[in-house]
This record gives sequence, C-alpha cells and structure tokens, in this order.
Amino acid sequence: MDRYSRFLAERTGRMRASEIRELLKLTEGKDVISFAGGLPDPSTFMVDEISRIAVDVVRLHGDKALQYAPTKGVTAFRDTLAKFLTSHGVSVRDYDDIIVTTGSQEALYLVSKVLIDRSDVVIVEEPTYLAALNVFRELESRIEPVEIDDEGMRVDMLEDRLKQLQNEGVRVKLIYVNPTCQNPSGTTMSRDRRRYLLELASRYDFLIIEDDPYGYFTFDGDRVEPLKSIDREGRVVYLGTFSKILAPGLRIGWALGPMEIINVMELAKQSVDLHSSTLSQYIAMEAVKRGVVDATIERARTLYKVKRDVMLEELEQELSKLATWTKPIGGLFVFLTLKHMIDTKKLLPKAIERGVAYVPGAGFFIKRNGSNTMRLNYSYPSITQIREGVRRLAATIKEEIATTHTG
Amino acid sequence: MDRYSRFLAERTGRMRASEIRELLKLTEGKDVISFAGGLPDPSTFMVDEISRIAVDVVRLHGDKALQYAPTKGVTAFRDTLAKFLTSHGVSVRDYDDIIVTTGSQEALYLVSKVLIDRSDVVIVEEPTYLAALNVFRELESRIEPVEIDDEGMRVDMLEDRLKQLQNEGVRVKLIYVNPTCQNPSGTTMSRDRRRYLLELASRYDFLIIEDDPYGYFTFDGDRVEPLKSIDREGRVVYLGTFSKILAPGLRIGWALGPMEIINVMELAKQSVDLHSSTLSQYIAMEAVKRGVVDATIERARTLYKVKRDVMLEELEQELSKLATWTKPIGGLFVFLTLKHMIDTKKLLPKAIERGVAYVPGAGFFIKRNGSNTMRLNYSYPSITQIREGVRRLAATIKEEIATTHTG
Repeated sequence: MDRYSRFLAERTGRMRASEIRELLKLTEGKDVISFAGGLPDPSTFMVDEISRIAVDVVRLHGDKALQYAPTKGVTAFRDTLAKFLTSHGVSVRDYDDIIVTTGSQEALYLVSKVLIDRSDVVIVEEPTYLAALNVFRELESRIEPVEIDDEGMRVDMLEDRLKQLQNEGVRVKLIYVNPTCQNPSGTTMSRDRRRYLLELASRYDFLIIEDDPYGYFTFDGDRVEPLKSIDREGRVVYLGTFSKILAPGLRIGWALGPMEIINVMELAKQSVDLHSSTLSQYIAMEAVKRGVVDATIERARTLYKVKRDVMLEELEQELSKLATWTKPIGGLFVFLTLKHMIDTKKLLPKAIERGVAYVPGAGFFIKRNGSNTMRLNYSYPSITQIREGVRRLAATIKEEIATTHTG
Repeated sequence: MDRYSRFLAERTGRMRASEIRELLKLTEGKDVISFAGGLPDPSTFMVDEISRIAVDVVRLHGDKALQYAPTKGVTAFRDTLAKFLTSHGVSVRDYDDIIVTTGSQEALYLVSKVLIDRSDVVIVEEPTYLAALNVFRELESRIEPVEIDDEGMRVDMLEDRLKQLQNEGVRVKLIYVNPTCQNPSGTTMSRDRRRYLLELASRYDFLIIEDDPYGYFTFDGDRVEPLKSIDREGRVVYLGTFSKILAPGLRIGWALGPMEIINVMELAKQSVDLHSSTLSQYIAMEAVKRGVVDATIERARTLYKVKRDVMLEELEQELSKLATWTKPIGGLFVFLTLKHMIDTKKLLPKAIERGVAYVPGAGFFIKRNGSNTMRLNYSYPSITQIREGVRRLAATIKEEIATTHTG
C-alpha cells in the first residue's frame, strides 16, 4: 500500500475493508454453518425456466439483448417493470419514473450521490443497513440515527430530533428507511407510523429513500403498503431489486421516484457504468412476463416461512433464557440481543471454531453500541443446518458465560 | 426540476445532459444513416454459441451463476481472463491484479474515484474520450490536454508541460490515454512514444490509465504492445472490455493494475454496485474458454477492416478537397477535419435533414475548439450505408460551403 498511498484520493481514507467480511471469508469451504450472509436459497431459482428464457432472449432478440442499451434501462423492460410493480401494490405514475440499476446497491449509490452534499443531515434507522451507512459516510454526510422498535422507526423520537435540529438551524434533507422486514432487524414499520413519517416529511420538507428488497414475499398477512404508495407529494424514491425474487446473479435493481430526480440519476449513471447488463434486463423482462418472478416469489415465501419458523423455534428452545430476538414477518433475518453484555465481535472467532458464523451487530449501529447483538440469516442455510447452527451458537454463548461471567 | 432543485447535491451541477445525445436520440427509428454511435456490428455477435453457453451456464452452474458473486469478480473468471490477456500480449502478474467491472466505464469511474482528488492534475490526449472527461470533471480535477498527431500523444509537448507544471510547483498525478486506435481520433501511439511516456511517468512520478477497448482487433500489422506490457514500475492501470470482442450487452469490463490500487477499487465498488452480473461473468468465462471470444475477434477484424476501407475510399472520392481525416489501423472511428471553418455542431441538424448523423468533434476538445471536426463510426452501419452516408455528408458540406462561404 505504501508505494501507492501518495496517489490515493483523500476519500479512500473513508473506505474501510470490513474486518468481519475478511474474517467470514476465511470460513468459506469449511464446515461452518453460516448465518452471516444474506443470500437467497438457490433452490428458489427457477433454473429451467431461466435457461429457457436465456435461450429465447439470445436467439430471438440477440441483436438487441447483446447490444448496448439506454442508460435509464431498456424501455420495454421499464414498461414491464411498471406493470409488475403496480400488480404488487407499488404505485407507479409512469414507467419513465423508473431507472434500471446494477442491483439496488447502485440505485442507493446513485440517489445518494445526486442528493447528498457534504455535511447534509441524513437520518437512518438504528440499527440500519451497513452498505447504506458506507455510502453516506463516503459522501461525508452527517448521519443521525433514530431508534427502531417492533413497529419500526420511532417516529415520535424522529419528530423530537427534527424539532431539535430545526432549532439548531439544521435542515434534514433525507431519511433512509427499509420499512418492511428491515435489514438487519427484521422488523416492519406499522401503517400508522408510515403515515406519520410522510406527514413529517411534508412538514419538515425532506425526502425519503425507501429501500424495499423484501416487501414482495412477506409470510404473514397481506403485502405491507409501501411508503411510495401512500406518498402524495413526490417525496419518496423507492428502491427495489430482482435479487430475492428472481436471482441476484442478474444484478438488476431499480429506483422509482420523481422523474426530476430519476433523470439526474441517469446523468450520474452515464459516468458510473453507462448502463446495466442488457442481457439481464431482457431475461428479467421475460421472467416477469412469463410469471417466473411471481412463481419465484411463491417459492421463496413458502420456503423462507418454514425456515424462519424453524429458526425461531430452535432459538426458543436453546436461548430463551439468554437472549431476545425479533419475530420477522418476512425478509431474511432475525436480530438477536444477548442478555449478558457479551461482545459478539469478540465471540465470533469462538463461534467459528465451533462451526457457526453470524454478523456481529455493532457495525449496524451509530450511537448505541449494539455490541451484544447479532444478525442471523435463515434464508440460505438448510433446515438441518439452521437447527444445528443454533445449537452450536447456543453452546458457544453458554461456554462464554460460564468462563467469563462466573469462573 | 424546480421543485427538487433544492434537494440536489452541488455536484449535480457538473453533470450535464449532452445536447448532442438528445439531438441524436431524435434520429432513432428514422431514415438517418448514423455514423454517430460506437456500436459493434451485431453480426459479429456469435449468437448461437452465446445462447448455447447461456443454457449450459444456467443449467450446469445455475446455483452459482445466478447467485451473488465476490465484489472483485468470480475468481475462476479472473483466472481465465488473466490467461486470455496473456495470450493477447497483455502482461499479467497475477489474476488478483484484476477487478471485474460493469463495462470498462465502471473501471474508469472506479480508478478515477480512488485516485483523483479535487484540483489534482489529470493529463489527457486532445481530443479525448468524452465519457472520461465527464468523470474527471465530476471529480473536479484540473484537466490538462496534450495534442495528438498521427503517432498519438505528442510526448515532446507532454514533457514541456510537465516541466512547466513542475516549475509552478504542480504535480501531475495521472495521465489518461487510449493509445491504440483512439476514440475519437482513430490514431495509434507509436512504440517509441509509448516507451518515452513510461520514462516520463518514472521521471515525473505519475500513474497512467491505459484504456484499451480496441487493441484486440487491429486490422493492419501485429497487435500493438500495450503500455501495460512495457511498464516495469507498476505505473499502469489497464482497462479493457468484452463489449467489442464478445457483446456489449453483457456489460463486462475489467481493470488490471497494481494490486494495491485494484483492492481500493474493490472497496469503492462495494458501495457502487456490490458486484457485476454473475451470469454475464460466467458467460464471458465460457466464451473465452470455448474460443468464442477469439472467433468474435476474427469476425470483427475481418468485417471492420472492410468497412474502414470502404469509408476511407468513399471519403477520398467525395471529400478529398474539403477535408482531411485519420487512417485508423483498427477501432471503430475515423476523425475528420474540415478545411473550411464550418461549425459541425451547427451543421448537424442539416446533415440529419439529409439523412446522415455524426458526432461533432468540439466536445472531445478542451483547449483547442475542434469546431470544424467530426467523429465518424464505421463499425455499425452497413457497407451500403457507409457509401450512401458519406455521399449525404459530402452533399451537406458542399451545400453549406456554397451557401455560407460564397453566396
């Protein structure tokens, strides 16, 4: 690094390799049950249908599907996407309010890049999605966390904070929320709080980034109405992805928002990657049209509901005295808080030693330290692995308590 | 725009929609022969082979090819890519010196983002690639152009400029070059100048971004040795793409450089788009292994050589008294300079009226105005269209001269 450090831009100082990520890399290929990732179960991928679609797309539309595409996305695909979203309860005014992105990570990157100036206040849920924090940090925004509970962001605390900031003469530009089956906590914002959040957005004049990767396959009850569909003032930029409802490997996400903002994102995207994979866009378009996405959603919903139930059941059996955890209605994660003040980051190598991995929660927090929390993924491991993994985790925790809290 | 302008970041002021781009959009679907794009001829795409590969990849490796991938790229693919590059005369120390990107545009974006600080001096060829200028401008670098002639960048003028800047106490961090079949000029840097450029890099301690989308299919003579293969000090970051040697729709490019820089690009990419399409990477990997890329290169070389010859021949016949132009040994473009001081930007609507489009050259220049130049693409239009298009262009120019320069 030394040789090149004099060439590196200042901002690279704000890009840090995650120790956890590096540590988890070491577990690959070993007999470690991983609750650490956020990967879909590959058995939800409709492999036969996708390969048939791939052939049709290349054979019948190869001249277009293999060619350059518009920066904003293939027009016919955006039209299909608009219909798909509408059928899933997401209000779309016009397909031109949509930009196709390289996964929803790029949607988040672009919207942040075009909205956030240095020192701008961005409010996030605490805990919140790590990759979002990284983007906001790179842009040198001032990140203000607001606690969440079982009903999502504490809008009462948000209001207090907004008032306080207003008194200090500080304007909040942006709130980033993942209101449905949140990553990492798994909680879902209630309907009342959603309405109140939009009211506050209007009153305090800020925009909302609604990140919604999981809203399409909640297990219990109906689809939760996204903020986007309640928004009457054009304050919400809605981010979505095919990663969990078709296949992550296509790398296709989108942002849906006021055209004035989407079009600036298009300009930004010209410099970033010109456009997203045309082939992936054609495949995703056909997958929507042929009902493959809806079928994948059904598969995922059924499978993940069972896996969630197994994880909750096993946690209840193994850890009810030592921890509390969230009961997600969907998504991929359970968030666990240990009753003892055990540092889950320090515990991780011991857990890996016993053959189980997780993500220590501290990284998802800004003000509170969350050092006794962890995020557990149930979508990727098999049912047997979930049972065995929770047992290994419980054994690790019990041993830690035995050695440090008594001995 | 007004409603949201108060929310937009300052940097969005530096992102401008291209008038030319908007104007050219209007020609789509009309009877206009376009020399404006930079698209490969779709007949070079090996559609049957790619669709066979797509099926195999999804059916046999669907669990991986449809899943998330490492940010730096699929490891086996980077290994294949390293061998491919080596076989094409690009020196690779280790496959871990490679990061896979969403087209080479993203490679350019990432390397610029990690190297360039505000006010850093970046030297470019004049004229140079527009999308590169946009990235450097967004990063608020100080762009210093150095003229090119038939042998590429005038390294003598570069040396003068470096001395001058050194005397002013200004250090140059970076030089961006597209030395083989340059976009837009079509010229290729001579071997002597390449060696001298590297000598200057050593003496004045700067890095070089070598953008090489066209070096794989030069028509005349052997493959030109890339700067990367002459570099002994780890000063070159080499950018490449499958867009012209397999299919642009896959959106797969790469950067090859000192691992210390590549690894910071990896960190930056985590925030930008997490990773590039896994499916595209698997398809590209198989295409390299099965010889489909090399076969595409042969197709492209044969076809584009004919097209270039036709364009040069037709220009000779139609415009030899009114213009001069470059004689590219490869790539996609001829760069034309009118002898009369006609503003090609103002001429464009008239040309479109006559059924032919091009890119006015002015946008490729920084100091010199280049208003009497234009870039002509010969890879996409058919041979008949090239002939007819040049005739329409000649007619437009002749009429312009007749009405404004005499009348």
